[in-house]
Amino acid sequence: MRELELPVAVEVWVPCHITCFFEVREHENPIETGSRGAGLNLDLGVKTKVRVEESSKLEVVGGIEVSRDAVKRILEGLGLAVKVEVHHDTSLPLGVGFGVSGAMSLGASLALSVALNSMTIHQAGAVAHITEVEHMTGLGDVIAQVHGGVEVRVREGAPGVGVVDWIPHPDDLEVVAVALRSMTTKEMIEDRREVIDREGRRALINVLSRPTLEVLMSSAREFAEAVGFIDLELKRVVNRCVELGALGASVKKGVLYAVGRGKAVGDVYNYLKEQFKDKQVVKCGVSRGGPRVSPASSLEGS
Amino acid sequence: MRELELPVAVEVWVPCHITCFFEVREHENPIETGSRGAGLNLDLGVKTKVRVEESSKLEVVGGIEVSRDAVKRILEGLGLAVKVEVHHDTSLPLGVGFGVSGAMSLGASLALSVALNSMTIHQAGAVAHITEVEHMTGLGDVIAQVHGGVEVRVREGAPGVGVVDWIPHPDDLEVVAVALRSMTTKEMIEDRREVIDREGRRALINVLSRPTLEVLMSSAREFAEAVGFIDLELKRVVNRCVELGALGASVKKGVLYAVGRGKAVGDVYNYLKEQFKDKQVVKCGVSRGGPRVSPASSLEGS
Repeated sequence: MRELELPVAVEVWVPCHITCFFEVREHENPIETGSRGAGLNLDLGVKTKVRVEESSKLEVVGGIEVSRDAVKRILEGLGLAVKVEVHHDTSLPLGVGFGVSGAMSLGASLALSVALNSMTIHQAGAVAHITEVEHMTGLGDVIAQVHGGVEVRVREGAPGVGVVDWIPHPDDLEVVAVALRSMTTKEMIEDRREVIDREGRRALINVLSRPTLEVLMSSAREFAEAVGFIDLELKRVVNRCVELGALGASVKKGVLYAVGRGKAVGDVYNYLKEQFKDKQVVKCGVSRGGPRVSPASSLEGS
Repeated sequence: MRELELPVAVEVWVPCHITCFFEVREHENPIETGSRGAGLNLDLGVKTKVRVEESSKLEVVGGIEVSRDAVKRILEGLGLAVKVEVHHDTSLPLGVGFGVSGAMSLGASLALSVALNSMTIHQAGAVAHITEVEHMTGLGDVIAQVHGGVEVRVREGAPGVGVVDWIPHPDDLEVVAVALRSMTTKEMIEDRREVIDREGRRALINVLSRPTLEVLMSSAREFAEAVGFIDLELKRVVNRCVELGALGASVKKGVLYAVGRGKAVGDVYNYLKEQFKDKQVVKCGVSRGGPRVSPASSLEGS
């Protein structure tokens, strides 16, 4: 193992991610397991700070279970006994459908990797992906978040194993989203596996045959209706978003989201704020380029 | 073929790209042919505007040979007889080592694809890659430019076929580069093929075993010295850049470049401006996230 100057702290930002539709693809090896589908990377994300200090034993504190486990996996692989503190900072909720657990797992893994000068982004992403698959907290968020943009997962698996393509989008594209309710990934998949796989595959074929935002969003909506994310009440809301000028709107797990440009985005935002007075409504851009590593200088004194 | 509302114009920005080292990998099919290696995507790039209008025959004007040919390939594939005007705008020179022909080919292909609602970014990139390979103007720039960042091409080929990983880098990383002289890709490869492949492979193994910017830049320099890009005079200049605080410096084709952070970057820039009074010296950041599509509204009246 290379020599380390401890303590060292690194901060990484990872975009949040809304899956538009997906198909579960299981294999024996978690590095090959994942989902095919498509989704939106948001310019709202999770900041993860990792601080590594000397210790007589391997110790990981802070974070959430999946981010601590990603860190442990890396340290065990390197045979490194250090103390690692993990701290996450985000304005979006866990367990609703924003890919927050993936962002936390990837953030912790990548920040630690940068602190130790040890891995490429695919390698750090693979650790985060495997940890997510083993905990059943996510199947495709990590590889999507590594790639950024409006992504299409054409082959499942961890970063470096799966294949991600992109749908071109104008730079001024915006997303409005409402956190409606919590639902675990496990619960979502167990209850609806057959229809998810059938409808996810159909939606992917649609989007690859005409890769535009409009087709993405209409496919996302058909998926959500078939899978049962959109009930009659939400159907009315989704329709109204489109009437107000959104390019499309749909629901994934506990997130209702719409995409659009210009004035329409503000109108949709105001409408949703009014409809869901007690819920968190956000408006943001699409993030390209995956995770960002903060300059070390910003962590001085940490 | 879907209906088109003509005329339509789309503008796309693609990052310029400096290859740090590479190994040529030839296959029978140009979509599989390419290079393995690593490089830097710059936040200086090429803007390409494509305007499509009705015509009695397929006609492509403007641009450069490789970007016109990418456009022709797409139109012929769709059986579409229209007139396409291609216009490129860049501050960096062609044929020096900034990946400008790749940026023009990708820019034209992607802008046309967006105008026609026809392809994903990998698909548009594959057309640009194949055109580059057939013209021998580039082997790895297009897939690198699609992915952005500090990229490592671990498998050769077009976007969607090749595999690109990334080296994590702090957000404040900067690049200083000097355009020393012109040299075609063909000329560069023909004269030095054996040493390029041997040293490129060695450098890739180095970087994958410890994926840091420092190892990237030392490997780039060893490659450049072995291949003969750095003579005694340039060796002095490259050494001086490192003395001034650059993380590393090297030469690729006709480009001398250094990477660094903070005050060192300004010092290196001033030094190189003084050393090369009659040459173009640029200072820029690293671009993540690949090509950018301009909002259509910015093209109104075009």
